[in-house]
Amino acid sequence: MAVRNLNDLFLHGLKDIYYAERQILRALPKMAKKAESDQLRSAFEEHRGQTEEQIHRLQQVFEAIGKPARGVKCQAIEGIIEENEEIMGEVEDEDTLDAAMIASAQSVEHYEISRYGTLIAWAGELGMDRKVVDLLSQTLEEEKQTDQRLTRLAEERANRKAKAA
Amino acid sequence: MAVRNLNDLFLHGLKDIYYAERQILRALPKMAKKAESDQLRSAFEEHRGQTEEQIHRLQQVFEAIGKPARGVKCQAIEGIIEENEEIMGEVEDEDTLDAAMIASAQSVEHYEISRYGTLIAWAGELGMDRKVVDLLSQTLEEEKQTDQRLTRLAEERANRKAKAA
Repeated sequence: MAVRNLNDLFLHGLKDIYYAERQILRALPKMAKKAESDQLRSAFEEHRGQTEEQIHRLQQVFEAIGKPARGVKCQAIEGIIEENEEIMGEVEDEDTLDAAMIASAQSVEHYEISRYGTLIAWAGELGMDRKVVDLLSQTLEEEKQTDQRLTRLAEERANRKAKAA
Repeated sequence: MAVRNLNDLFLHGLKDIYYAERQILRALPKMAKKAESDQLRSAFEEHRGQTEEQIHRLQQVFEAIGKPARGVKCQAIEGIIEENEEIMGEVEDEDTLDAAMIASAQSVEHYEISRYGTLIAWAGELGMDRKVVDLLSQTLEEEKQTDQRLTRLAEERANRKAKAA
């Protein structure tokens, strides 16, 4: 895909995060299944539902800019998820696995926070429809809240349990 | 590497970010060389110096916990940098490339922000030497500042120039 200006860059970034969200959707059930604490399992399950909604919002953004909803392979999210799966395979204790999965999930959230932040700035600069900025901003806010929720789960229980393992 | 508790997880995370920082150190000069604006080139060059210092801090953390400074392949940063190089190859306009490189650099910063945040929380839970927490916190603060500086460079010039391309 030749990228000649900010408009092309926006479309490329949109396809990238669309691909990434669908990879995340596939990774979350595996993480929920492996979670030791009920709170962490719930957090992953609820975030799966949220991710479905976020994918739907991206489809609305594609529609708003008159382009077909299509992903482009995102090597960044592939690497982040591979690293997550690797550490999940190396951890031999259930409580420690919770702490490890929280850290991995937070690196996913931060990737998304950076990408949505960029897309919002580009959409603003391009003077896109207010609806586009609103859809992306809603998701950005959810990703930040998920990141904070994961921090609380780590601090309130997972890290302490992993320390005692 | 078998990971049995939070202590093992901390060491694994430390090796992971140590590897990542060295990959970033190698990627930054290429990005500086390709930057169209003087301000962006300076930002990448200065961040290279900062990254050297951050690597030195990680070596001090390894020393403080009595372990040899050694990296472990970090697939997340590999994926993020590969994606960066791919988009750098696809962008055909110099101003648009600046906007693309800023976005890529911000995804690197966010990866680091998430990793250092986690390491600081784990070091705190493990009751590690205050020096360890201080070294990691200094770097976290720098990464956040770099992220904000990149946001300013995008908003003040790069995005506008890319739009006009």
